[in-house]
Amino acid sequence: MEFYGDSISGNCLKLRYTADLLGIPYTWCETDLLAGETRTPAFLRMNPAGQVPVMKLDDGRCLAQSNAIITYLAEGSALFPDDRYQRALISQWLYWEQYSHEPYVAVCRFHMKYLGRSASERESWRVEKGEAALDLMEASLQAGDWLAGDEMTLADISLFAYTSLCHEGGFSLSNRRAISHWVARCQRRLGLG
Amino acid sequence: MEFYGDSISGNCLKLRYTADLLGIPYTWCETDLLAGETRTPAFLRMNPAGQVPVMKLDDGRCLAQSNAIITYLAEGSALFPDDRYQRALISQWLYWEQYSHEPYVAVCRFHMKYLGRSASERESWRVEKGEAALDLMEASLQAGDWLAGDEMTLADISLFAYTSLCHEGGFSLSNRRAISHWVARCQRRLGLG
Repeated sequence: MEFYGDSISGNCLKLRYTADLLGIPYTWCETDLLAGETRTPAFLRMNPAGQVPVMKLDDGRCLAQSNAIITYLAEGSALFPDDRYQRALISQWLYWEQYSHEPYVAVCRFHMKYLGRSASERESWRVEKGEAALDLMEASLQAGDWLAGDEMTLADISLFAYTSLCHEGGFSLSNRRAISHWVARCQRRLGLG
Repeated sequence: MEFYGDSISGNCLKLRYTADLLGIPYTWCETDLLAGETRTPAFLRMNPAGQVPVMKLDDGRCLAQSNAIITYLAEGSALFPDDRYQRALISQWLYWEQYSHEPYVAVCRFHMKYLGRSASERESWRVEKGEAALDLMEASLQAGDWLAGDEMTLADISLFAYTSLCHEGGFSLSNRRAISHWVARCQRRLGLG
């Protein structure tokens, strides 16, 4: 199994975190998005949307969208348990991450870290929505150690990717103790840092 | 089972389409988002994100995010089949819909139809990305009748919701014959129009 990903992208790191935690072997194929490597004819054949990450199975079939891929990888494991409602709750977080968190928290990071903008040059509506996303996470993590249920799941891995990097987009966790402790918990489980 | 939704929202209509097709009984609780009914304390207890749709089970447990809800509803049906890769492919489309289609196609519609903006007042970056999303769908539907595999699945229901309304956001299907035929196919299957 091959993962095509750019190590600067939290969306791509989700695959690495999930596969490493589950002991799934893979080959990492570094794909430089800033250099246009997701727009080559060969890449577009794997994913016409021109986005990393892409998972390529040994038989050549491909799959895109980070949260779809980690769900595929984690099926049958404790990261995506058997209970139907529990799985739906995890998916709820995964969709929320892509709609209400990533476009703000991750995109501000991209603008600052990779396009060289300053914090004050961030779009105000994007900052506001990013702050709201972090506030919602803080409230949820004040109520429990993990986002969906009593154990770490895909919801945590998916949200960890960009939340742990949010300072690079001008966001702060200093008044968000529940998130800060959760980030540390995730790092321990993932064997990071 | 109760569905809290606003009938003007394609995201909410996805629940109705899926449940009706599968013969799942439900009570529709009309929730007027423009009147602020998704921001009341009672609603925020169901979904702290303050968004419709919400599904409320008979035991009181709630679930948000349209694509998470229709996945929950369709588990075990032909709309979300048993094959692991096939399910992942459907989920890929559902995540793509929320990240690369809805924020452009649906939001332009919202701005025009409900906030009274004209087509020329739409944000150019949003129009560009909406056009790109429709182009990607057109290419995919030129290659096959349905988005994920040989039969209608949740991928089609999810993308149908706002694609079939895209003219209300200033987009056109007149040069997109594959999408136009697919919209008609979806309408027949869903018993609409």
